Amino acid sequence: MLPPLETAHRADRILKALAAQGGFDVQSPPEIDDQVLRLVHRPDYLEFLESAHSRWRAETGAPAEGDAVAYIRPLLDGIGRKPTHVYPQLGFYSNDVDSILEGTWRAARSAAASALAVARDIHEGNRVAYAICRPPGHHAAAGTFGGFCYLNNTALAAAWLTDQGHRVAVLDVDTHHGNGTQSIFWQRGDVLTVSIHGDPEVHYPFFAGFEEERGEGEGLGTNLNLPLPTGSSWKTYVSVLAQALQAVHDFGAEVLVVALGVDTHIKDGVLGLQDGDYPHLGRSLVQAALPMVVIQEGGYSPGVLEMAVPAVLSAMGEASS
Amino acid sequence: MLPPLETAHRADRILKALAAQGGFDVQSPPEIDDQVLRLVHRPDYLEFLESAHSRWRAETGAPAEGDAVAYIRPLLDGIGRKPTHVYPQLGFYSNDVDSILEGTWRAARSAAASALAVARDIHEGNRVAYAICRPPGHHAAAGTFGGFCYLNNTALAAAWLTDQGHRVAVLDVDTHHGNGTQSIFWQRGDVLTVSIHGDPEVHYPFFAGFEEERGEGEGLGTNLNLPLPTGSSWKTYVSVLAQALQAVHDFGAEVLVVALGVDTHIKDGVLGLQDGDYPHLGRSLVQAALPMVVIQEGGYSPGVLEMAVPAVLSAMGEASS
Repeated sequence: MLPPLETAHRADRILKALAAQGGFDVQSPPEIDDQVLRLVHRPDYLEFLESAHSRWRAETGAPAEGDAVAYIRPLLDGIGRKPTHVYPQLGFYSNDVDSILEGTWRAARSAAASALAVARDIHEGNRVAYAICRPPGHHAAAGTFGGFCYLNNTALAAAWLTDQGHRVAVLDVDTHHGNGTQSIFWQRGDVLTVSIHGDPEVHYPFFAGFEEERGEGEGLGTNLNLPLPTGSSWKTYVSVLAQALQAVHDFGAEVLVVALGVDTHIKDGVLGLQDGDYPHLGRSLVQAALPMVVIQEGGYSPGVLEMAVPAVLSAMGEASS
Repeated sequence: MLPPLETAHRADRILKALAAQGGFDVQSPPEIDDQVLRLVHRPDYLEFLESAHSRWRAETGAPAEGDAVAYIRPLLDGIGRKPTHVYPQLGFYSNDVDSILEGTWRAARSAAASALAVARDIHEGNRVAYAICRPPGHHAAAGTFGGFCYLNNTALAAAWLTDQGHRVAVLDVDTHHGNGTQSIFWQRGDVLTVSIHGDPEVHYPFFAGFEEERGEGEGLGTNLNLPLPTGSSWKTYVSVLAQALQAVHDFGAEVLVVALGVDTHIKDGVLGLQDGDYPHLGRSLVQAALPMVVIQEGGYSPGVLEMAVPAVLSAMGEASS
């Protein structure tokens, strides 16, 4: 077993880097009413997430620091019942081998609170607000966790803003396809979801993220996937980014929710961006000329996270002021 | 990680116990043509099983003794493509965290060869034949491995005999529901599948094994699940066994395929059978008055496997001679 890349320390690293850069107004989010999470997640899934670790401990006698991990999933033929026992529920409510820890619910709920706070900030008239969400969210679907994600912070911000009457587009620039976000809005035509990411034929999350996935029903045409070849540099990236921003414009978006993964860096994920590209990314996003909610997604490598997040945000701040 | 309960040593333990008991004619199965596996498994799944470990090694650079294990599965919403890369395929073709080892294909294929050899033996007129199959098979579905099972030996024997024109019933007495076998014959009315097992509400395989699962389409009514409360003793077991044998009789079966798990023992799985119950089990099965293919499924605990398998088979031999 390898230690997980996604740790609580990531938030501290970002905070420290922003403080070093200077010029950011940092706030803690207020508590949230869990009801709001139902905007994007199923009630039974939320109930499971909140109770899973203590139920798993009661069943196994494991210590508080134990990892609850799925070991069985339903056969794909659909025969049988929805499980009531915590062991199969761990498989039913996930698509990965991620753990639920004692602090998972509290951490995921805090990240969601941050996402909601910045959405509110934009709703109240600000132009750019960023949430240091961790764990990240874009691989979490309405009823499953996976890929380090438990609550879909990006989708929550987008759904809440939509609920307030804004026309919202999501642009996911993480190196991995935002499969959870896509799934949540798949049949909704009122939110545009766009994702730029490494080719899912050979990269996580593998099963989705292809160009032909355009949404369904009322959502048909409001999902856009822009997969890139492994190791793509800024030169390739920027033309696809222009295509993404054109789609956001064509949709008539009034607010842009950016799922900001910085694992696009050549030293981190599967694409080939370099240090100097991140200010360009920030300035390009500002060219959408929309109020922007920026939600932290992936980005892990030492130095990369610390460099890229302040670089994008500073460029946004300068370009939009 | 705990070491797996299901090891190659189990076959040696059974062989040794049968030799100690005496009176068995032990033979090695002839090689099989892999085409026959398509009677119960999908071609793409078979191709995956055969190639997975070497493809996984090529991808990871892992040593020959490495374990290829799934870490991602599709979201249950069905969005996306069937994967081509070995990482997602490990999740697509399994419902568990079981490994594929370098020797998995060879071992599973040998177990299937044993199952086929005993089916042939019965086809040629013998009354009882037993296959020391390991890995076991009854949790493997048409296109997935899991629960220590890769190729469904029991289903293969049943499907092959059906193909030869026999009317076949499967009776699964393993402590765990035969979810793979059920799934394979779910829509087929020409094979009866019956399983007696610990309550799946609280025991593996959790997602299926409930009484209301009766089959579908042409298979409607030819699947029977008889779950038992945790720790059930022979007294409870025997009345349910009578119900199972009645169903086999009512179906008009000409051959009985017994999926013989001996993890029904109080020291092994989740039911409460004792040493003295296994000869009764053997004699009860013979009361069906049908030629019998007996396929080894589970049974792990030291002493239990060695005691129970010869006990069942000897009782069968005595009762049927």
